[in-house]
Amino acid sequence: MNTFGKMLKVTTFGESHGSGIGCVIDGMPSNIKVDTNFIQNEVNRRKGGLNLYSTQRKESDIVEILSGVFDGYTTGAPIGVFIKNNNAKSKDYENIKNIFRPSHADFTYFHKYDIRDYRGGGRSSARESIARVASGAFAKLLLNEFNIKVRSGIYSIGGIECKDIDFDNAINSEIYSLDKNIENIQKEAIQKAKRNHDSIGGVALISAFNVPVGLGEPLYYKLDSIIGDYMLGLNGVKAIEIGNGIESSKILGSQNNDEMCKNGFLSNNSGGILGGISNGDTINIKAYFKPTPSIFKPQKTISTHNEETILTLKGRHDPCIAIRGSIVAESMLALIIADMLLINASSNIKYLKKIYKNNKF
Amino acid sequence: MNTFGKMLKVTTFGESHGSGIGCVIDGMPSNIKVDTNFIQNEVNRRKGGLNLYSTQRKESDIVEILSGVFDGYTTGAPIGVFIKNNNAKSKDYENIKNIFRPSHADFTYFHKYDIRDYRGGGRSSARESIARVASGAFAKLLLNEFNIKVRSGIYSIGGIECKDIDFDNAINSEIYSLDKNIENIQKEAIQKAKRNHDSIGGVALISAFNVPVGLGEPLYYKLDSIIGDYMLGLNGVKAIEIGNGIESSKILGSQNNDEMCKNGFLSNNSGGILGGISNGDTINIKAYFKPTPSIFKPQKTISTHNEETILTLKGRHDPCIAIRGSIVAESMLALIIADMLLINASSNIKYLKKIYKNNKF
Amino acid sequence: MNTFGKMLKVTTFGESHGSGIGCVIDGMPSNIKVDTNFIQNEVNRRKGGLNLYSTQRKESDIVEILSGVFDGYTTGAPIGVFIKNNNAKSKDYENIKNIFRPSHADFTYFHKYDIRDYRGGGRSSARESIARVASGAFAKLLLNEFNIKVRSGIYSIGGIECKDIDFDNAINSEIYSLDKNIENIQKEAIQKAKRNHDSIGGVALISAFNVPVGLGEPLYYKLDSIIGDYMLGLNGVKAIEIGNGIESSKILGSQNNDEMCKNGFLSNNSGGILGGISNGDTINIKAYFKPTPSIFKPQKTISTHNEETILTLKGRHDPCIAIRGSIVAESMLALIIADMLLINASSNIKYLKKIYKNNKF
Amino acid sequence: MNTFGKMLKVTTFGESHGSGIGCVIDGMPSNIKVDTNFIQNEVNRRKGGLNLYSTQRKESDIVEILSGVFDGYTTGAPIGVFIKNNNAKSKDYENIKNIFRPSHADFTYFHKYDIRDYRGGGRSSARESIARVASGAFAKLLLNEFNIKVRSGIYSIGGIECKDIDFDNAINSEIYSLDKNIENIQKEAIQKAKRNHDSIGGVALISAFNVPVGLGEPLYYKLDSIIGDYMLGLNGVKAIEIGNGIESSKILGSQNNDEMCKNGFLSNNSGGILGGISNGDTINIKAYFKPTPSIFKPQKTISTHNEETILTLKGRHDPCIAIRGSIVAESMLALIIADMLLINASSNIKYLKKIYKNNKF
Repeated sequence: MNTFGKMLKVTTFGESHGSGIGCVIDGMPSNIKVDTNFIQNEVNRRKGGLNLYSTQRKESDIVEILSGVFDGYTTGAPIGVFIKNNNAKSKDYENIKNIFRPSHADFTYFHKYDIRDYRGGGRSSARESIARVASGAFAKLLLNEFNIKVRSGIYSIGGIECKDIDFDNAINSEIYSLDKNIENIQKEAIQKAKRNHDSIGGVALISAFNVPVGLGEPLYYKLDSIIGDYMLGLNGVKAIEIGNGIESSKILGSQNNDEMCKNGFLSNNSGGILGGISNGDTINIKAYFKPTPSIFKPQKTISTHNEETILTLKGRHDPCIAIRGSIVAESMLALIIADMLLINASSNIKYLKKIYKNNKF
Repeated sequence: MNTFGKMLKVTTFGESHGSGIGCVIDGMPSNIKVDTNFIQNEVNRRKGGLNLYSTQRKESDIVEILSGVFDGYTTGAPIGVFIKNNNAKSKDYENIKNIFRPSHADFTYFHKYDIRDYRGGGRSSARESIARVASGAFAKLLLNEFNIKVRSGIYSIGGIECKDIDFDNAINSEIYSLDKNIENIQKEAIQKAKRNHDSIGGVALISAFNVPVGLGEPLYYKLDSIIGDYMLGLNGVKAIEIGNGIESSKILGSQNNDEMCKNGFLSNNSGGILGGISNGDTINIKAYFKPTPSIFKPQKTISTHNEETILTLKGRHDPCIAIRGSIVAESMLALIIADMLLINASSNIKYLKKIYKNNKF
Repeated sequence: MNTFGKMLKVTTFGESHGSGIGCVIDGMPSNIKVDTNFIQNEVNRRKGGLNLYSTQRKESDIVEILSGVFDGYTTGAPIGVFIKNNNAKSKDYENIKNIFRPSHADFTYFHKYDIRDYRGGGRSSARESIARVASGAFAKLLLNEFNIKVRSGIYSIGGIECKDIDFDNAINSEIYSLDKNIENIQKEAIQKAKRNHDSIGGVALISAFNVPVGLGEPLYYKLDSIIGDYMLGLNGVKAIEIGNGIESSKILGSQNNDEMCKNGFLSNNSGGILGGISNGDTINIKAYFKPTPSIFKPQKTISTHNEETILTLKGRHDPCIAIRGSIVAESMLALIIADMLLINASSNIKYLKKIYKNNKF
Repeated sequence: MNTFGKMLKVTTFGESHGSGIGCVIDGMPSNIKVDTNFIQNEVNRRKGGLNLYSTQRKESDIVEILSGVFDGYTTGAPIGVFIKNNNAKSKDYENIKNIFRPSHADFTYFHKYDIRDYRGGGRSSARESIARVASGAFAKLLLNEFNIKVRSGIYSIGGIECKDIDFDNAINSEIYSLDKNIENIQKEAIQKAKRNHDSIGGVALISAFNVPVGLGEPLYYKLDSIIGDYMLGLNGVKAIEIGNGIESSKILGSQNNDEMCKNGFLSNNSGGILGGISNGDTINIKAYFKPTPSIFKPQKTISTHNEETILTLKGRHDPCIAIRGSIVAESMLALIIADMLLINASSNIKYLKKIYKNNKF
């Protein structure tokens, strides 16, 4: 259950304070040039410790490619990736060894498995998401061959929403904000939460451009259902919206329908997906992140022996997980689209005829 | 790609105007008593044609069990189910043979497959959801053995929200509304849309009670990610929310965290899921349905030859797909929990030791 | 666990004496012409009751297509198929209700599930293989588009081996024998077993011609490993051989290696598969069938209450399951190659570039 | 396609001359004690370079556990394993960079992927099997909890068959021979092949003891079909036999059937499997290995440019791959049984009731 994807499959392993985080990327077509700088840069975008808005855990996050690449190209063999942990401070977690942190996975892991790697959350830590970003970078190498682009940014922090969406702004923003004019208000909300030993929620917008019509497999591997799957699996994501999904539940069909003309759709309320299949328009997704559960205020909780206690957490944590989470969500969307691109290759006899011409390769 | 689930797997087939809709339910444990009346009743809950708030297509919807049940019990063999179509009016669809209905799957199916069963939407029709409800009824038979209950109702219509949540009210309500006091206002909103040849969006609430701690498989078959998968795959669902997911993105950690005492959680913002695993509290999900795309107002669209045209639809359609959709969503949640229950059986060596005692069965 | 295949997936259901046998064929590319006569003919090839060498159970075996085909072409939707049982004689099985037939699945099904559909073997009956042949016929429709042919015949009966392999002879032979000169000796061996209330083993040869180089996915979906999977899953198959597999274990590398010249391989000991991937040469497989376990001699066995007894079976059975089994094996090989053809479509970036030219379909 | 198993899933990566071989073992129940010495010992059993009968490539084969184990116990998280390559001699392979070695995977990999890691066979090398043995060792830890034992040995070399089967002899034999009296004749056959710059085929016997009744999932995850899958996927295995499968195709039902008395089966021709499900008797499998394709005699072959040439190989190779292959086959059978044990846990409502008693864990 640590694998996702159908044709482009990713398996991850590793814990927050173990030797590192790894993944195996399986199903990458052969003969794709592997730009290792690009992959490292993608992983660096997720990196914490760089400013006031993220954790102070400083990891070098060096991506090591263990297999599947030869002479700079993919070979069709599985790509092994490993990223060492080198700044884990397990001592910070001694005090929660037998105590469940509220709204963390501690309680459920303990009851499911009867054993819990409490150091930094173990397997349930968001540190694992580095494997998703590394895998997503490989997916992007594939998407680049077809000029498909996936981008992301912070849409809102603590309910403070961006008005103008500018993915270029997100790149340079310390909080990946999509709107230069709102960014500072959002930052101040984060700082205020931090000063109060608290954390804050946020929303990421993820978009994919130039996606061909036809990606997504009805009825049980639809593009939107897999988006729901991958995105709600991200740490802290508690809601996911395609296009104007939430608004659409409040309005009329005549307001929500996307009419068409010969040059395309006249609106994009659907978020680029109809019947679970991409319609050629931009894919728009919003991921709603809860506030970081790790806060530094005293909280009521219980121990593994069901004793009540008051817990005041220590450690290093992001005040707003949506920020770095947006990069992970972007990576996941790249992986979904890449997977769908591969799956779709056998959906129509006309494609197969292009490939197996004269019955010789 | 027409199969879902890992241990409890459902495969569906059939089109809106074909001979019928069928499914194969695979992985049901043996020796579960099959109450065929219950199954038929569940399917009837989804049925249209019963009042002003749903389609006028009247189907008898008789559930035929083709295999997998012997002497009234499951045998461990796959359960084949078939439900005949007998009130399809394909002529209603002749006029859209070469025209794409806005915000329907027509455009994407045509471009993906180069062939489209235009009669009633073919495979993309919500008629297929009858297979989900029939399967869900079997899942409920399994859940009943453990006293797990899944319920649903309409939470809002066109933005008009219920205040008091009463699942019993939903059972008797023509629109499955959760609040007796709000129901009439919601009904009026639907009638108004209908009078204007329009449709309207809505939100369903689905809850599961008495779910044991520990269901859900990290990291890529989490309970919430599979909820996202199954729910966003439902026709018309464009957003999905776990617990107070949307609100959580706007607030502070200290407001959102669910503290604990020895009797359980002091709040349930998480919607019963932590780290992708059930925490023993009630599971709460909201599914956001867009308005029915089939409206009877003139709409701009194009033909399969990319010619612009104005389309005025005919046919029989629900004015608000959220209503009957809520039953389908409830069925899907039952299927998810049943699947997770089976998967979890091998997660901990202590369970296996209970089963394989003395190395004999 | 009643589904097989990765991109071309088949799910089967039904029991020997239930209402019928069905299957869902998922993943067929769209726009393939469906020749229903061909499909019915394939199913008829497997039919029993036609001569002295097969069961006297006479079924009409009419193939009903329930979905997935529109205007004579595949639509990309799952293809539902159902074949009614209409000549089941369940009374023949009353006497084995509580008794395990030796070398049948009765004992293991009973202990696994605590309930057993004893009528004709229930789910474990070879009657289910009709779904495999119907599915295989669809696979052949796909293979025909690329001129790939799969053929089969009886290679040996009771150790009496064919010398000249002639697939055309198999078509007209009552026992599907590959050698006109050996056929009568093989027939006599079957008749002799039958006269003695006994049954007899046999070997089928299955070959695939014109398979392109490159099918099969290393390392865990190799062409030969999936052949092993599908073939050893057939009722009565207890060994499977690729090329000259058994002989190869007795000889030297210099004798076994297939040298190459510019026109191809100088021998085909490998059976057309190297490293789990088709090498362009003919694929040759032998399936070793045990004798039918249903014999009419008295046999020692036990009851469900572990009481010892002597059982003398009644009923209608094939004296040699290899004969009709050869058709099923042929169907399975067609399904494997079709599946591999679809999977391979995304293995190499050059194929994807042919499909997604100009990033438009 | 580099993953196998359903509930106990293994994903492998790595090439012969890359940085190493790794795997991810997913689905191990939590709270199993991990004996790292045992795991290392299992891997050492497969090791080459120890005597005259195996390759002279000397690898330290140190097993590094990267994740999934905490305080000496499994946690339910995926277990990452990595084994470094440190004795690769890639220069040995420069001369085959553009030449296809007969009966190797060179030709098929090149044509499938258009790129080939020629160093030591790259991904197609049997070096990858170290990951299977490491995974198999974990599977054995699970099987040990239930006293299930899997053993193996060499049954025949170049057609020279063992007569008395003694698994204890195999442990100490340099060629893992099952028969002390035949061992030297088998050794001499290998030495003779080696002196002639040749290689030789062989057969491994693999048995599993104390397997409970009921493992194996009909109809498409049968115990025997998965044995076929896993075993025919091993490098060099070209045939696989369950029980007396090959012989059974030559005899009568009355000779082949396993009659029963109240203490069990009176014979075991079925090899412990009926209807795809374990029957409680010993599971017996024979894997037929072809001779090593790497021989040191001149062979006719072609280049990547289709030019004919004579190739005389260099390098270090096993003269008989069956020997070390037997350990890999044993590991695979352990993995299959462990997987089946986990899957079976949800097959019968009585097991689930043992687990979810009082609806609390």
